[in-house]
Amino acid sequence: MYKDNIMRISKLALLDNSNKKIDASIGMYYKENKTLESVTVLNRQLKKNINKVRMYSLEAEKFSSAIIKWLHLEDIKDKVRAYYTLGGTGGLSLIFKKYCKGTTLYLPNIRWNNYDLICKENNVKINEYPYIVNEKFDIDLFKKKIQKDHRKQLNILINTPCHNPTGYSLNLEELNSIFEYLRTLNTTRKINLIFDLAYLDFSEKPVLFLDFIKKNITININIFLVYSFSKTFGLYGYRAGAVLLLSSSIEELSEFDKKSNEYIRSTHSSSNNLLVTAFSDVVLNKKKNKLLNKQVIDNHLKLKRRRDYFLSLCKRYYINYVDGEGFFVFIPIENSIDLVNRLIDEHIYIIPYEKGIRVSVASINKREITILVKVLKNYI
Amino acid sequence: MYKDNIMRISKLALLDNSNKKIDASIGMYYKENKTLESVTVLNRQLKKNINKVRMYSLEAEKFSSAIIKWLHLEDIKDKVRAYYTLGGTGGLSLIFKKYCKGTTLYLPNIRWNNYDLICKENNVKINEYPYIVNEKFDIDLFKKKIQKDHRKQLNILINTPCHNPTGYSLNLEELNSIFEYLRTLNTTRKINLIFDLAYLDFSEKPVLFLDFIKKNITININIFLVYSFSKTFGLYGYRAGAVLLLSSSIEELSEFDKKSNEYIRSTHSSSNNLLVTAFSDVVLNKKKNKLLNKQVIDNHLKLKRRRDYFLSLCKRYYINYVDGEGFFVFIPIENSIDLVNRLIDEHIYIIPYEKGIRVSVASINKREITILVKVLKNYI
Repeated sequence: MYKDNIMRISKLALLDNSNKKIDASIGMYYKENKTLESVTVLNRQLKKNINKVRMYSLEAEKFSSAIIKWLHLEDIKDKVRAYYTLGGTGGLSLIFKKYCKGTTLYLPNIRWNNYDLICKENNVKINEYPYIVNEKFDIDLFKKKIQKDHRKQLNILINTPCHNPTGYSLNLEELNSIFEYLRTLNTTRKINLIFDLAYLDFSEKPVLFLDFIKKNITININIFLVYSFSKTFGLYGYRAGAVLLLSSSIEELSEFDKKSNEYIRSTHSSSNNLLVTAFSDVVLNKKKNKLLNKQVIDNHLKLKRRRDYFLSLCKRYYINYVDGEGFFVFIPIENSIDLVNRLIDEHIYIIPYEKGIRVSVASINKREITILVKVLKNYI
Repeated sequence: MYKDNIMRISKLALLDNSNKKIDASIGMYYKENKTLESVTVLNRQLKKNINKVRMYSLEAEKFSSAIIKWLHLEDIKDKVRAYYTLGGTGGLSLIFKKYCKGTTLYLPNIRWNNYDLICKENNVKINEYPYIVNEKFDIDLFKKKIQKDHRKQLNILINTPCHNPTGYSLNLEELNSIFEYLRTLNTTRKINLIFDLAYLDFSEKPVLFLDFIKKNITININIFLVYSFSKTFGLYGYRAGAVLLLSSSIEELSEFDKKSNEYIRSTHSSSNNLLVTAFSDVVLNKKKNKLLNKQVIDNHLKLKRRRDYFLSLCKRYYINYVDGEGFFVFIPIENSIDLVNRLIDEHIYIIPYEKGIRVSVASINKREITILVKVLKNYI
């Protein structure tokens, strides 16, 4: 029921041409002036490269170095393999198809809609674990779910930092409790632990997160990272991103090379070279890379200030919310569909979930936030 | 064995930095000055659109109109559905996964290598039909293969015009014999007839071909067209193309909508918007579209002149070849791998097949052709 509503609301929002429209339903980051937020250093490079298409086979290695550098994984590069993907969806599709097909995948109980479709298309059975209970992650409930499972292969997806839709990021202690538990499991089992990092760069401390992950590379756990260029660089229409495997097993790394190449060559043949070469050219250039880092952090801080403004208004009007970060604020309420339908009459679009609503503070500006919260307080 | 050789030779060619190198192994179209051939009107539009990403959900319909117009299908648009894909590979991957999975697909006995991988990845069994025998298509041998098959669903792929690797295009009579035969089959069977049109615009009469196809829409045959932007527009690195279904059955068209959306959303989420919007902007503008048509035809004619030059030299040195068109010339010989290996020592790269070699006249210029044929005549 909720899934159908997400589709319905996104469509209604797109089609509404009223100047009163406030579209807080979409995961896209707009500036205050309602144009897309982006990073100029990468855009400039794109313009520069546009008519210079290079062979992907010659660029793949360079891209791999660039994304490894960008994600601060250079010091463990022997334990990493990286491939270009078609956005976050492309990376997930690769892993679900080549690693989870015909088996079960543990997904957060509240999640991005599209995981379910990618599972269905790749014959992956879904099991759920509670992501947050009373606005916190509960390792005991997580264990309780997983420990019933004695199959040879265990696939778990975690969408942190900035979980969609709650915004909740697992802290290092919570992450550590997961790794500690997984390490106690029989080492003859194969564990695929998938981190969906679509919103990584909108979290407070992405480098600390990556440092933690690096230190937890364990022989029986394949750590997959799925990274999206759409969100971080505001390049939604390019379908670009990366999938990485972190492992201390040479066999697993080789297997990943093989599987990734099979997937890529049979699905889209090569990469979006324009973006791949522009990204590599920027990241592998010291000065440009510094600028890219600065611009990405600036965008994060701008969004944080907007989010803080939204939250300050929520506090003023006694509207509860989940403590989080990133594009979305989650407001726990009952009967979310009733509320959302009433808001549509006022040209306001937000996404309903079973136990609350998701407001995208990335897609609306401060003026819209002020109006939105004032309307919300009348209903909550 | 031949497959491994294709991979090996392409790789060797890429890595050879000698100024003697003549790379006639790749399906990319270079100008005489060895830069990529392209169409300026589309490149100009790409530059114009580069920082104006629009929502694909709003562009999909426009793209569908544009590709339908581009392929001269406007007069039957009620019988057509069109979707953006990730190059030719993306369109084939969509059809193989959503229509052929778990069943059998008939492929030409000599063919593009990647069909086999896409089949394997999507659990499609391969059966072969003879594409040309004594340098002609033989409808009786084709029937002989197909008529043994009594399964409920029949999937056939035809790579024409400009078949890769032979260059041979089925003429209208040959195409007609296929349709006539398929129409005689039990109408309760479902027939998926897939045309790989990657090289359509390098054939002599693309519009005649499309007109013929249009006239043969039959209730029990799904006609799929797979179109690639890589070849026609020289936009290899963008991964763009289109997949179309031509059918007089409303149910089949709706089913195609559903399947295409499932595939797209679970594999790459949306399109490469930059190219999609640029293509639509050009094709739906009368003046720009006229220019695009002219430039595409000019590119075809330039390639044809180069091909003719190659063939005139072959004639002079009594080298046999298959009568064809497009990027490739097929020279029937025995022991192709021996020959190809000897040529590598001379920094010349061509692709071996079981009964001949494939020379890409698209990727080499006249100077290189002159050298190549002189070397070839010493061995053939």
